[in-house]
Amino acid sequence: MIRVGIVGATGYGGAELIRLLVGHPHVQIANLYSSSAEGESLEKTFPHVSGLGLPKLAPIDAQSMSKDNDVIFLATPAGVSADLSPQLMKLGGTKVIDLSGDFRLECADAYRSWYKKEPAPAEWVEKAVYGLTEWNYEQVAGASLVANPGCYPTATLLALIPLMQKGWVKPDSWIVDAKSGVSGAGRGLSMGVHYSEINESIHAYKVAKHQHTPEIEQELAKQSGIASLVQFTPHLVPMTRGILVTAYGQLETKVTQAQAQELFEATYADKPFVRVRPAGTHPHTKEVLGSNYCDISVHVDERTGRVIVLSVIDNMVKGAAGQAIQNMNVMFQFPEKAGLPLVPVFP
Amino acid sequence: MIRVGIVGATGYGGAELIRLLVGHPHVQIANLYSSSAEGESLEKTFPHVSGLGLPKLAPIDAQSMSKDNDVIFLATPAGVSADLSPQLMKLGGTKVIDLSGDFRLECADAYRSWYKKEPAPAEWVEKAVYGLTEWNYEQVAGASLVANPGCYPTATLLALIPLMQKGWVKPDSWIVDAKSGVSGAGRGLSMGVHYSEINESIHAYKVAKHQHTPEIEQELAKQSGIASLVQFTPHLVPMTRGILVTAYGQLETKVTQAQAQELFEATYADKPFVRVRPAGTHPHTKEVLGSNYCDISVHVDERTGRVIVLSVIDNMVKGAAGQAIQNMNVMFQFPEKAGLPLVPVFP
Amino acid sequence: MIRVGIVGATGYGGAELIRLLVGHPHVQIANLYSSSAEGESLEKTFPHVSGLGLPKLAPIDAQSMSKDNDVIFLATPAGVSADLSPQLMKLGGTKVIDLSGDFRLECADAYRSWYKKEPAPAEWVEKAVYGLTEWNYEQVAGASLVANPGCYPTATLLALIPLMQKGWVKPDSWIVDAKSGVSGAGRGLSMGVHYSEINESIHAYKVAKHQHTPEIEQELAKQSGIASLVQFTPHLVPMTRGILVTAYGQLETKVTQAQAQELFEATYADKPFVRVRPAGTHPHTKEVLGSNYCDISVHVDERTGRVIVLSVIDNMVKGAAGQAIQNMNVMFQFPEKAGLPLVPVFP
Amino acid sequence: MIRVGIVGATGYGGAELIRLLVGHPHVQIANLYSSSAEGESLEKTFPHVSGLGLPKLAPIDAQSMSKDNDVIFLATPAGVSADLSPQLMKLGGTKVIDLSGDFRLECADAYRSWYKKEPAPAEWVEKAVYGLTEWNYEQVAGASLVANPGCYPTATLLALIPLMQKGWVKPDSWIVDAKSGVSGAGRGLSMGVHYSEINESIHAYKVAKHQHTPEIEQELAKQSGIASLVQFTPHLVPMTRGILVTAYGQLETKVTQAQAQELFEATYADKPFVRVRPAGTHPHTKEVLGSNYCDISVHVDERTGRVIVLSVIDNMVKGAAGQAIQNMNVMFQFPEKAGLPLVPVFP
Repeated sequence: MIRVGIVGATGYGGAELIRLLVGHPHVQIANLYSSSAEGESLEKTFPHVSGLGLPKLAPIDAQSMSKDNDVIFLATPAGVSADLSPQLMKLGGTKVIDLSGDFRLECADAYRSWYKKEPAPAEWVEKAVYGLTEWNYEQVAGASLVANPGCYPTATLLALIPLMQKGWVKPDSWIVDAKSGVSGAGRGLSMGVHYSEINESIHAYKVAKHQHTPEIEQELAKQSGIASLVQFTPHLVPMTRGILVTAYGQLETKVTQAQAQELFEATYADKPFVRVRPAGTHPHTKEVLGSNYCDISVHVDERTGRVIVLSVIDNMVKGAAGQAIQNMNVMFQFPEKAGLPLVPVFP
Repeated sequence: MIRVGIVGATGYGGAELIRLLVGHPHVQIANLYSSSAEGESLEKTFPHVSGLGLPKLAPIDAQSMSKDNDVIFLATPAGVSADLSPQLMKLGGTKVIDLSGDFRLECADAYRSWYKKEPAPAEWVEKAVYGLTEWNYEQVAGASLVANPGCYPTATLLALIPLMQKGWVKPDSWIVDAKSGVSGAGRGLSMGVHYSEINESIHAYKVAKHQHTPEIEQELAKQSGIASLVQFTPHLVPMTRGILVTAYGQLETKVTQAQAQELFEATYADKPFVRVRPAGTHPHTKEVLGSNYCDISVHVDERTGRVIVLSVIDNMVKGAAGQAIQNMNVMFQFPEKAGLPLVPVFP
Repeated sequence: MIRVGIVGATGYGGAELIRLLVGHPHVQIANLYSSSAEGESLEKTFPHVSGLGLPKLAPIDAQSMSKDNDVIFLATPAGVSADLSPQLMKLGGTKVIDLSGDFRLECADAYRSWYKKEPAPAEWVEKAVYGLTEWNYEQVAGASLVANPGCYPTATLLALIPLMQKGWVKPDSWIVDAKSGVSGAGRGLSMGVHYSEINESIHAYKVAKHQHTPEIEQELAKQSGIASLVQFTPHLVPMTRGILVTAYGQLETKVTQAQAQELFEATYADKPFVRVRPAGTHPHTKEVLGSNYCDISVHVDERTGRVIVLSVIDNMVKGAAGQAIQNMNVMFQFPEKAGLPLVPVFP
Repeated sequence: MIRVGIVGATGYGGAELIRLLVGHPHVQIANLYSSSAEGESLEKTFPHVSGLGLPKLAPIDAQSMSKDNDVIFLATPAGVSADLSPQLMKLGGTKVIDLSGDFRLECADAYRSWYKKEPAPAEWVEKAVYGLTEWNYEQVAGASLVANPGCYPTATLLALIPLMQKGWVKPDSWIVDAKSGVSGAGRGLSMGVHYSEINESIHAYKVAKHQHTPEIEQELAKQSGIASLVQFTPHLVPMTRGILVTAYGQLETKVTQAQAQELFEATYADKPFVRVRPAGTHPHTKEVLGSNYCDISVHVDERTGRVIVLSVIDNMVKGAAGQAIQNMNVMFQFPEKAGLPLVPVFP
């Protein structure tokens, strides 16, 4: 049993980590940290965790945090980890899995430009491992600091990497039209999460400006050796959880449906959390809700010469807390599926 | 006051026609027709129309229909109008506005291939006018038989035509990622409209196979003189009403945001039901709910050389019954806005 | 054409007044007032009203308000009208319809106790007319200051008054279990309207403590001459609009289903906005959405000796803006239905 | 490890049993049965269970079923178990947990009258144990045939029994106003589960006629020794999962909030799946979603002399599959919480 600490326990990412870790066979939730509610019981914020005997919320203090935990999850807004993680790394004693975007972008200018903030110190950005488990398994296994992927990049990269590794798609042709539930916006208050404004409505946001764009391009380039240009558009859907990515690529060469299908099936045959759906089907986000799966179907349109990939995840699980735990499992040599529910909550 | 008949009154299209026509100053709902519930009161199917004194549901009979109405709306499944409209046209006496797809496709083979049905007689397909009011105003004004546009094509064509008329976008680059509420699927029962399956979930359907694809391509070509190849993907969103089209085009030439903005504003300046939103904004489907508006915003992404157009309508209004009434207004020289609500139901 | 002013135009009540008044044949929206956004265009807050040519938002100033309007609607939070309405009344020149609770409770102590605020001046509370149009038609016709009923009391009183006037129900037996959509909570930000918290969930709130309780009891007593004790429990339902009241009363005497049915049908036979449903049916809130109807069905349970009344309204229309306009129509001798849509938005 | 069989695997009850049993440490899902899809893989019906290696769907055959399973769950429509369970009981070899209503009502006439069907054979009805685990633990431990409680009765009885055991409430005063998500209606097609009809709407149904009424009255009488008369009204809420019961009882005697609070806390102190909430709070159904909890808060209204109890469950878990597994745990001396998730899925 390892001791786990969670920073940002009063947010949705923190709550989801708790949901999954309470049932994890090799883990003890040793500490919960919050800058806003220290000394309080988490039940006040989240009645749904009543009766679990969770530790009280403790203040954020790098010194004690590094001693009291074997691994710390940071489920905090952009900018917090940039400061806190290097402190924890220097103190040693604990590994860190950062769910924010602070250590994902290798290029400091890209971070500045897309996040409108100062980036984390370069030396630590360099040491951080991008935790897309299916593609960076070995590096994650040896990592002390993991940059857990963003929700959109997770669903997107699992869909695009196989095709780009083959060189089947024109690298500047990618259009990623993504649809997300509202929980991705977090627990903070804004008109963007006001029920009466969001319910029974769909809209795009941050067209051409979303900070997950450079993350997708960076990792796609690293995995495939080809620099791609990705048009990424997120949309807000009136549902709480779930992301659907509809990705369009112009084929470089003739590829049949059977070839594309085979490529995906072969690529993910031994990956427990990626399920390739039969040809001609369309995954629903609800079919992975509450689970760590990414379900993918691939469609070749001969009429237009394009490949369309559909990819669904639960943004709170494979898009955040679940993948973070999957990475922890790899870092501590636990079974990759430990503590991760195997059946989605349906309906 | 003209006499109006509605065929398919027990469906959602019929119900929406009634909602709008009850308040129309120049119209009397003279007859309601239904093949499934003749002789019954519509209140049994739709309690929401109780107390309106609507006529009882009458059986479908071309002879009497042609005599008893000045205009007939057909809100019927594919295939019904192909048979009924030519009968009514031959009898004369009434104009017809067909909300189904039976008279939209000029090419019989395209109809067969995408609808998997036999097309309507070619002579009548030829005489039918495609009722995209903003672009075919003159033809609609003189028409006896109007093929009312599909919901997806309406939102798509209003977004694409201005750009293709200018020749600014590569004609084979169009990707139209469309999102629709569930009412578009109609009132029939299927797992595709089962609440527990659809709620809290989003999915694509009919990837590369949706029958609105050739309709979009045909009308885009007619309005611009350029044959485009359109990748069209519909999605089902957990909401009742609303369509959002996110359309992506590769620019042929350098176009600035200001130029694109100006193009749309100029094009639709005198169209009462198309509202061009300010640069940098993202329309929500809810902001047109219950109204006949199509709200559009245009975004140029200099980084990728693409134009992205966002277009929202209420699929039941501008995407069906509202546009049908707009066409009726034009056909009978009523004010174009007559009977059409000017303020969306928000929130 | 009379000149109408709306205070609180940036809230949902204000938006709904605008939606309905834009189509009203005898009214011109002359002025919009807002304390938070003066000088701005309302389109910035509400893109759905773009292109309507509405007046800019003006500051709240009693002097000019009394001169520039024939009637003013106050769609403001509790406490604002208590101060502003007496000023307007003293200046004369305009009538006032107050959508807040400030002038509804005749007993100052009741206001203090349930609203936790100081009440409006007693002399003006006395002069205000409670605007439950169906039951106070004559008083409303002669009123200068109308206290528009609360959303819950509207649905409740229309259901209970007929039975209490007959003396058929034990006055201390009433249980009113009410369910409301989220728009009733307004446009302000709070965890109580946070999408991810509210969606896919239902909960009761303010059990035994809701401020609409004394309003219901007061008006029920006035209309029936019997003091009732009402157990009122509101619930928040994951939908934007709509209120369903399920009211339970213990019968004093044997009443058959037929008698109860006849009572309601006779009572509301000539009321254009109350529709009594057939015996054995259950109205859905959606069947009145967007309209000013209150649909009612009554059920007698012989096994338990109770009468159960189901009553549905759109909280934004009959529960607020619609009834306010209905009252305006009566105050200015316009047709009672003028400007009020006659067909709900379904589905 | 025991061998478990599930009948009705293609329904929602079956799917939820699978979700929970896949993670159960002492159980192997040995057989899935379906009358409609034998020989097929369940993935065709439920893509969300892809990749789990579940057995193929087998035909219903009592002989082999009794041999191949240690316990069988029947998640079947009313009437199926009445016939099948006695066969299985006579063959011996397997225990049966019936999620339908066939063995819940002891009185054959009550079954006939409320279910409009012929009841199961009296001798087996007599032998069946009503599986409200918290109150029938000992009987369940020794049972071969368990009648798993209905969803509404579960939430209701856990709220009412403590008060009736004390004799604090007038037995003919109970009003149970219940609100349920749509999944309770099952996977079959009907207008009652049509998305566009149900979404954004709430309605009551089966007023005074719901078949869970006699079940509640029977068990309340058995646990308290007092015959109660319960007014039960179910409502359909636009959400997939969750039940909220708002129960109103007239106090026989003066009871303070503190006394009521203490009663509930003491009663359920050692019950792992009933959580009594602090005084003054209101549980949300979402706060138990996906879990086997029943969360309860109790409110005494001194003004009206009533007690109001709020009780929330996930209808698919504590209201069906979860409680069935809780009963299995008790029948096989597994830890009561085995296989049941301890943290709800929130948000």
